[in-house]
Amino acid sequence: MKALVYRGPGRKAIEDRPMPRIELATDAIVKISKTTICGTDLHILKGDVASCAPGRILGHEGVGAITEAGQSVTSFRAGDRVLISCISSCGKCEYCRRGMYSHCATGGWILGNTIDGTQAQYVRIPHADTSLYKLPPGADEEALVMLSDILPTGFECGVLNGKVQPGCTVAIVGAGPVGLAALLTAQFYAPARIIMIDLDDNRLAIARQLGATETVNSSDGKAAAAVMKMTGGQGADTAIEAVGIPATFELCEEIVAPGGTIANIGVHGAQVPLHLERLWDRNITITTRLVDTVSTPMLLKTAQAGKINPRLLITHRFKLDAILEAYDTFARAADTKALKVIIEA
Amino acid sequence: MKALVYRGPGRKAIEDRPMPRIELATDAIVKISKTTICGTDLHILKGDVASCAPGRILGHEGVGAITEAGQSVTSFRAGDRVLISCISSCGKCEYCRRGMYSHCATGGWILGNTIDGTQAQYVRIPHADTSLYKLPPGADEEALVMLSDILPTGFECGVLNGKVQPGCTVAIVGAGPVGLAALLTAQFYAPARIIMIDLDDNRLAIARQLGATETVNSSDGKAAAAVMKMTGGQGADTAIEAVGIPATFELCEEIVAPGGTIANIGVHGAQVPLHLERLWDRNITITTRLVDTVSTPMLLKTAQAGKINPRLLITHRFKLDAILEAYDTFARAADTKALKVIIEA
Amino acid sequence: MKALVYRGPGRKAIEDRPMPRIELATDAIVKISKTTICGTDLHILKGDVASCAPGRILGHEGVGAITEAGQSVTSFRAGDRVLISCISSCGKCEYCRRGMYSHCATGGWILGNTIDGTQAQYVRIPHADTSLYKLPPGADEEALVMLSDILPTGFECGVLNGKVQPGCTVAIVGAGPVGLAALLTAQFYAPARIIMIDLDDNRLAIARQLGATETVNSSDGKAAAAVMKMTGGQGADTAIEAVGIPATFELCEEIVAPGGTIANIGVHGAQVPLHLERLWDRNITITTRLVDTVSTPMLLKTAQAGKINPRLLITHRFKLDAILEAYDTFARAADTKALKVIIEA
Amino acid sequence: MKALVYRGPGRKAIEDRPMPRIELATDAIVKISKTTICGTDLHILKGDVASCAPGRILGHEGVGAITEAGQSVTSFRAGDRVLISCISSCGKCEYCRRGMYSHCATGGWILGNTIDGTQAQYVRIPHADTSLYKLPPGADEEALVMLSDILPTGFECGVLNGKVQPGCTVAIVGAGPVGLAALLTAQFYAPARIIMIDLDDNRLAIARQLGATETVNSSDGKAAAAVMKMTGGQGADTAIEAVGIPATFELCEEIVAPGGTIANIGVHGAQVPLHLERLWDRNITITTRLVDTVSTPMLLKTAQAGKINPRLLITHRFKLDAILEAYDTFARAADTKALKVIIEA
Repeated sequence: MKALVYRGPGRKAIEDRPMPRIELATDAIVKISKTTICGTDLHILKGDVASCAPGRILGHEGVGAITEAGQSVTSFRAGDRVLISCISSCGKCEYCRRGMYSHCATGGWILGNTIDGTQAQYVRIPHADTSLYKLPPGADEEALVMLSDILPTGFECGVLNGKVQPGCTVAIVGAGPVGLAALLTAQFYAPARIIMIDLDDNRLAIARQLGATETVNSSDGKAAAAVMKMTGGQGADTAIEAVGIPATFELCEEIVAPGGTIANIGVHGAQVPLHLERLWDRNITITTRLVDTVSTPMLLKTAQAGKINPRLLITHRFKLDAILEAYDTFARAADTKALKVIIEA
Repeated sequence: MKALVYRGPGRKAIEDRPMPRIELATDAIVKISKTTICGTDLHILKGDVASCAPGRILGHEGVGAITEAGQSVTSFRAGDRVLISCISSCGKCEYCRRGMYSHCATGGWILGNTIDGTQAQYVRIPHADTSLYKLPPGADEEALVMLSDILPTGFECGVLNGKVQPGCTVAIVGAGPVGLAALLTAQFYAPARIIMIDLDDNRLAIARQLGATETVNSSDGKAAAAVMKMTGGQGADTAIEAVGIPATFELCEEIVAPGGTIANIGVHGAQVPLHLERLWDRNITITTRLVDTVSTPMLLKTAQAGKINPRLLITHRFKLDAILEAYDTFARAADTKALKVIIEA
Repeated sequence: MKALVYRGPGRKAIEDRPMPRIELATDAIVKISKTTICGTDLHILKGDVASCAPGRILGHEGVGAITEAGQSVTSFRAGDRVLISCISSCGKCEYCRRGMYSHCATGGWILGNTIDGTQAQYVRIPHADTSLYKLPPGADEEALVMLSDILPTGFECGVLNGKVQPGCTVAIVGAGPVGLAALLTAQFYAPARIIMIDLDDNRLAIARQLGATETVNSSDGKAAAAVMKMTGGQGADTAIEAVGIPATFELCEEIVAPGGTIANIGVHGAQVPLHLERLWDRNITITTRLVDTVSTPMLLKTAQAGKINPRLLITHRFKLDAILEAYDTFARAADTKALKVIIEA
Repeated sequence: MKALVYRGPGRKAIEDRPMPRIELATDAIVKISKTTICGTDLHILKGDVASCAPGRILGHEGVGAITEAGQSVTSFRAGDRVLISCISSCGKCEYCRRGMYSHCATGGWILGNTIDGTQAQYVRIPHADTSLYKLPPGADEEALVMLSDILPTGFECGVLNGKVQPGCTVAIVGAGPVGLAALLTAQFYAPARIIMIDLDDNRLAIARQLGATETVNSSDGKAAAAVMKMTGGQGADTAIEAVGIPATFELCEEIVAPGGTIANIGVHGAQVPLHLERLWDRNITITTRLVDTVSTPMLLKTAQAGKINPRLLITHRFKLDAILEAYDTFARAADTKALKVIIEA
């Protein structure tokens, strides 16, 4: 089968690989119909993700159909159309029982990282019963690819951890795909204001279309002052960090209101200064989280009910044969205006 | 000044009454600009509310302007336009400190009950600092009259107590004004489905306009079966009782899903059978609540931000001179299709 | 092997039965070392539990050692000493994923009910990975038998649902084993007062030894007045119902403070009157629950740390051969002063 | 009257000062019977607290008796014995209504900071109704001085924010008075383990007496390794920072378990490195808080019920005349083994 393979820092290739097989009785094999590329895949390609060895098929998102289910799989059978969670969960370990699937003893983020992933014609899914979700009849498969990772990530790490509430003020730093996913899912809770902050006017324009009530282009280095002015000196009840660098985290520290929350989504490669000399008495909360995908059943329900339109995040479509072009388009997002690209396997 | 006065069961009159005066340093006098009639006022007129003595000016809702503020009032001064909360709160007692303003040691629901109320040209408001809310500039005063009682009641007693969550299924029994207020505010949390149940097709039609995804006319006595069928035998995660009689509460008992919540809003005059023989092992929660109006600041923000349109509940408008006609219209709602009536003082 | 078998209403017998065998790959066989009798077993013997057919081996509590584990069991192997949960949980279904193991699609309370139970030399445990708990080294096995059912029941249905908090006042109606389990576990949260109510002075004396700060003998029908007097007319923040009849539930309705919670543990056979005409505006919460045993890992930790001494609930010990005598002792608790009886298999 | 007055960095003096008078109708005058010294007073004396000007009477803790109450004070009258909260709260502003008294628009930490404090014979207390608490009859006044600041601080900032739960593992970094206050109040929730970390063996010995299950002397720089070893590589569910320097905060970052919480109590003068490069995917929460004293009513109840013994924190006693000696003793705690010193006015 065809697959996109990581070949070490800066190198990737479409290769012919053997079909995956059931290894454990709890595995399932899924024939991918649609997959996508994640910012994390670009991190891997830079060589930033030590756990991912050369030779690995990338990708941890997708929908498809089960072609074979291991003997212990009870919830699915061949032919079932499924959503693949980016997080594999055994359902048994202490972390899974606490809803922290991201830290599953034998799962977590393994797809396209420590085992072969979804940017291929077929993929083996461990712990299938608790890592796949049946697609509702008539589901919009393209839209639901967004539920593999980006929507639960924006929702759980940003919105849920950020305690977004009716009437509150939310600031989201970073209008890339995950920041926009936070923007879409924040609206589940009817905040009065959502201020989107980014360097890219195109992305800010999209943010306004997707529900941001105000936007701030931070390229002048005055975003904190702008947000404080907009909020009458109060700041944001929830500040969501969706970039992953010190400057954007510090911006969140500057704009969070007393009693508010900084919800970190960004993948950070370096320490950030935490200004406790200013924040120790401001009753704030800071959260970090690798998405657990515990919210996937809820997201499926809201998407089916039309409470959210994940399709709004899709900008480009490619065939699997053209995945190198898809990577190029996605990597040059400032030029191509790409958000999420759909790859048809 | 003119006022609508309760004269004992079945009797009410427009009377000329002395202007209210500051009695305690924490009082304020408000010149009413708009008020409305509540179902509770009809209960009083039936003689059902023992605490309300003949001679009482009715009404516990309204907006207006402060004409005089007691010496200890620090948040308001003459001229301020304010929303009157139906619940007076001292801000000091144990209940107020816990956010249970409804049980305030020297407040709670007293307006138009144990002290003179808002269906008049002027009203004295005790504990003004903590029982009034400044209107935002440019506020739609008619719309905000809905925030005195009906919206916080639907929200706090129904939606908040009912733990409405994104993706969940809500059933609301009773499509009167308070049930519709629950319907409007339930949408703050993006439930996947809101099933509205009533005997009146007109009200069900309005419910669909206001966001109900499905409606059930319960006049055939088969509403429980209908809801169970709609939900695949599962029932509703949240069942909101907005009527106040045994039959509607029992309906909620029949349709609540395992793990779900029955949130009572209705004012009950009789005991109801609680079927613990069927519910003891179903992990359900039942809540009761007299509105605390702790959510008023949030509701003001969401209304200002356009996240909710309280104006949708207003069907009729009258001058204070015509308040007897307003009562008649409101009392004959099945015929007049009245929801909330605005009275201009 | 020997087993205690239900033979229809009023009839039970010690019988020789075939050894249980692995039926599904997720099963394990446990050689029972200690088991006990539950009030529910007495209900079955009265014929009150329709789901339990004659011929069934009773019992849903116990500790023992695994003799055989199915092929898909990954957390345990032969020789492991384990605690058996009274609730079987698949770990996969929607309810299990939400922590409502009691409603597991293929589990819940099945042991000694719809499948053979633990009052035997061996038992088959379905969903072994998620229904058994490894005993800590050096564990007190007798004490831990209390963790199969009675302690999580008292804790989850009574204490956790009842929102017991530091400084609060708890009233527990019913000082039988499950009420005493609530008493022990309520102390995890440092309530200021725990008032225990029962008809039996012996049980009240035990309650005082186990941490009750006050006791009320309710045989004079004046328990509500006594509790209201003790609490300065305020009532209890948490009222735990641990009997299961209308009179005791109504007592809870009378003594719950405004803003308080009635947490039902009792197994009810009939409806109870819910006095909404008095409670509708008192901001109370009522909860029901079949124990989920989600708290078992926590209870194991607190027992190992000596924060709770489950052994205090054990009054009698028998060999499996003498289980009929154990039943008799347990059933005549008023005479024998039995709480929990340990049966050594 | 006599008072301890701050005279600029490094300087303080006992002075004769005019009696305080009622300035606003909501004030009360309290004759101090017992007060104490806080670590914050030492910070002021170092010149670290810019808001506190020379000439200020220090002190924000104490109990005493009301000698005069302003006209708007309704909860207290002359003669009432009261506990003084270190936080003044108006009960009216948005922050007070949200329970964030520390950020009260006209209150917060003002006593002994921006207005004269309690290390004097008399003190003026603003917002008396909502900043004083009536002492229960027969109260141990010395013990209750601990409830002015240190116990609510340890409890709210450390234990409550740290989400201490039955069976969990808590690590407290810093065994000074506030760390020990966290240790005492953590036991409200029956954690399985409380690991206390400090440089001072004497304080660690006291910590063991007060309930620490394990202690670590961190002077060898290997505390993180020690805690990780004690917890089987897992870390602490709750790490409480009770020092206020980068090294101790970073220690908390190293020992917090996945899914755990770092609750900061320390007053920090400099930024700390936040290792998001290691923590971004560990699902942790970090909280900061200036004590709100919302828990004071609960702490009074638990102290009266004997669930906590605040007296354990008191090591020395002085007359107000000898307050300079008291300061010296408190400041040289390593030598004097002082925790809290009681000053009798």
